[in-house]
Amino acid sequence: MRVHLVFEVEEDLSKSFEKSLPDCDVSYGELPAEDTEILVAGRPTANMEAGMPNLKAVVIPFAGLIPVTREALLKRPGLDVYNLHHNASATAEKAIELMMSAAKRTVVNDRSMRQGVWAPRFDTSEALQLAGKTALVLGYGEIGRRVAAVCVALGMDVTSVRRSTGNRRDGEIQVRDQSMFPVLATTADVLLVCAPLTDETKGIVSREVLKSMPRGGIVVNIGRGPIIDEEALFDCLKNGHLHGAGLDVWWKYPTGEEPSQPSDFPFQDLDNVVMSPHNGGTVQGTEPVRMAALSDVICRIAVSDTELRPVDVLRGY
Amino acid sequence: MRVHLVFEVEEDLSKSFEKSLPDCDVSYGELPAEDTEILVAGRPTANMEAGMPNLKAVVIPFAGLIPVTREALLKRPGLDVYNLHHNASATAEKAIELMMSAAKRTVVNDRSMRQGVWAPRFDTSEALQLAGKTALVLGYGEIGRRVAAVCVALGMDVTSVRRSTGNRRDGEIQVRDQSMFPVLATTADVLLVCAPLTDETKGIVSREVLKSMPRGGIVVNIGRGPIIDEEALFDCLKNGHLHGAGLDVWWKYPTGEEPSQPSDFPFQDLDNVVMSPHNGGTVQGTEPVRMAALSDVICRIAVSDTELRPVDVLRGY
Repeated sequence: MRVHLVFEVEEDLSKSFEKSLPDCDVSYGELPAEDTEILVAGRPTANMEAGMPNLKAVVIPFAGLIPVTREALLKRPGLDVYNLHHNASATAEKAIELMMSAAKRTVVNDRSMRQGVWAPRFDTSEALQLAGKTALVLGYGEIGRRVAAVCVALGMDVTSVRRSTGNRRDGEIQVRDQSMFPVLATTADVLLVCAPLTDETKGIVSREVLKSMPRGGIVVNIGRGPIIDEEALFDCLKNGHLHGAGLDVWWKYPTGEEPSQPSDFPFQDLDNVVMSPHNGGTVQGTEPVRMAALSDVICRIAVSDTELRPVDVLRGY
Repeated sequence: MRVHLVFEVEEDLSKSFEKSLPDCDVSYGELPAEDTEILVAGRPTANMEAGMPNLKAVVIPFAGLIPVTREALLKRPGLDVYNLHHNASATAEKAIELMMSAAKRTVVNDRSMRQGVWAPRFDTSEALQLAGKTALVLGYGEIGRRVAAVCVALGMDVTSVRRSTGNRRDGEIQVRDQSMFPVLATTADVLLVCAPLTDETKGIVSREVLKSMPRGGIVVNIGRGPIIDEEALFDCLKNGHLHGAGLDVWWKYPTGEEPSQPSDFPFQDLDNVVMSPHNGGTVQGTEPVRMAALSDVICRIAVSDTELRPVDVLRGY
């Protein structure tokens, strides 16, 4: 089976990758081979024009389907599309990192201490205790599940919502249908967005939802920027309705090497936001893990493993 | 029973506090009443000179016994001494906050993003994944237990050590005798110090222990500064043996209002340390919780509750 990766891989990794796929013929590079059957590409749009009449499957080597990819794939029905979820643990850890640092003002404390100023030591107004608080996890997939489990261990009261799940209980976690989201947000001290960007989640964390949250809450986003109303989040942070926010995903991304702000609103001027450069999945040792996950998916495509769930391109995840 | 608090309490709180102690006569202020039977004081040293011939018990309204307090109390045998552990959850959360932010470079990421610089986005060398790593929790009391549970939920392999416990298992957590600490440190990716400062813990995280940890590890301290060898920790951070450290407790504390550095070594010049002003227990709503815990301890002293464990003044906790 012909597998083409549109990116280069370090020699050590490519060797072990190819060794793990003895029945595949693996090639690399920007231009996919004409006889490609499995294409591995982060943004396959451009590559789709290359023809590839035998193309059977596309593997996107991370989680999520950006809109332009979805458009391109919808024009070519019959293809199976897969995501990799190898960095779910790392991304869940990013959500916990951002929740903790927004709750405790990590950045402000650190900046103060570097100047020898201990003032935050006795100021009880600036740090939120999480034990006893209510966490609402939007999205209950590979990432949301891990985030919810840590929130339980922190002594929080945890509810998660996901699309069309029916109401159920998973250990100590209440799992609710996404239609309940606006109601559940009204009692959420901490809202953790761990959902993919789809037509249904775009803007779901609206101005109304943010304003309905209890005063002094926290919003964390490791899903995708446009799930949250950008201006409303900025307003709720600036006017103090929210205690804080921790954001790893944004509304605007750099198009070149020049510094560029991640929003039309000056989040960088707010002390109650913790800003992170969409690097939740970027951890030490991630490349070997990614290549192992990729090998696993390709093997399973090759043997038509029915338990391997393709992405629903229409829904977007 | 005459109870004296050597600090003032807000009127709302003092009212409900007194109401909760109908059989006690409560007074406040720097100078304890001569007929005090239960003294509540953070640093009772000076107050001990006031005589108080009927003094039966001292309550220190936080966890731990500083050396000068210990000296003073040892001179007055027969007194029962109690700590409050009302902020164990908040302090455990501080440990998790510092572990996550040291592992992920929260402060560095935030600083970069505020300048629109996304460079850390694809740099896998800077962030540590915690899932799959080994955590060693030094101290397994009210705080250590909570920290260990969160580490388990994060997918870490968790061992804790405490004094004279015998080896046992608590759920997914291995609990080992403190004598095993130097051996266990040699495989600890993350060392979380959650122990009180005693003769036995002072300097227990020595240069040898730090050097024996696997390269690229993390040290968190929410116990007390002198448990860790100050210079050795600085060296291991500066030379990159450790990936990072998160410190809420220090070797030097301010004596006045002037800015003052928390160590003789310039931790403030290191990017791989997260600095916090000993405010783990300082969270919103902590005062009512502290007063409720204080009321509870006083009630139990008054009825000679045998399950209320006094501090072992000789041991220091």
